[in-house]
Amino acid sequence: METNTNMPEKAIVTKHGEREVRIERILNASRDRVWRAFTEEKLIAQWWGRGNKLVVEKFEPKRGGHWRFIEHTDHGVFGFEGRYREVTPQERIVRSFEWDGMPAHVAIEHIDFVDLGDGRTKIITVSLFHTAAERDGMMQSGMEGGANQSYEALDRVLQALG
Amino acid sequence: METNTNMPEKAIVTKHGEREVRIERILNASRDRVWRAFTEEKLIAQWWGRGNKLVVEKFEPKRGGHWRFIEHTDHGVFGFEGRYREVTPQERIVRSFEWDGMPAHVAIEHIDFVDLGDGRTKIITVSLFHTAAERDGMMQSGMEGGANQSYEALDRVLQALG
Repeated sequence: METNTNMPEKAIVTKHGEREVRIERILNASRDRVWRAFTEEKLIAQWWGRGNKLVVEKFEPKRGGHWRFIEHTDHGVFGFEGRYREVTPQERIVRSFEWDGMPAHVAIEHIDFVDLGDGRTKIITVSLFHTAAERDGMMQSGMEGGANQSYEALDRVLQALG
Repeated sequence: METNTNMPEKAIVTKHGEREVRIERILNASRDRVWRAFTEEKLIAQWWGRGNKLVVEKFEPKRGGHWRFIEHTDHGVFGFEGRYREVTPQERIVRSFEWDGMPAHVAIEHIDFVDLGDGRTKIITVSLFHTAAERDGMMQSGMEGGANQSYEALDRVLQALG
């Protein structure tokens, strides 16, 4: 009988209310390593773009700081940006998120880092959109698939961090 | 009997739903002149800061462009910024708005320019906040007084444009 130990986890993606999306994903790494992968520029550049080339134009992970990433894909070049509301080490990041293709359509992402106590870490991301239409549009544009691709790239980065 | 022709108009400020604020203000100037005062850097710098010194760090009034203003007051220095979603000449500006003191708490402002046909122009600004708490907090922080001060400074700019 085969085991699934080498299969990537799937993110659990659920809608809440009219404007929220919640994404849960377990990572096979300590919270300290996961935190580094979210807050060190060289590491986040390796996974946030789902394995695509990612140019980090700005990355200031602290309250009030800005971020701006450019993803280079086979289908084009996509810019994303936002600002940090909260960066609490090992625990929580709250930041705004928008895509250049829909400027000033802003979602707020609350990212919680939960130490599962067995060497694994759960990431809970709650995205609050400004309107129900924006939430539903983002879901239809492939948010779930994109999140899974990013987390699979993150699995590889965490494994390499050892 | 005194007339009130030299008294500034007062903005009409109303709450709508849980997350919106609507501000209406009539200006004694043509829509063309009002549009210029909102989209020319030298003009907006003279009124947006309520008569205080305003440093325009970035001002790109077009879809996807950014803006960033620094207001210098007797009580301190305050930064504001956002991005343009829509700039339709003489008709409409939609942009995001946030204050450095509450980073990544973002409101979306829809600003409509209505030609009243008698040489006056009505500005209707609908601000949609991300949460009810943010809307109520902004109202309590003196949004109405600040808007009136800005519009009175705008009256002076428009009169000088004459």
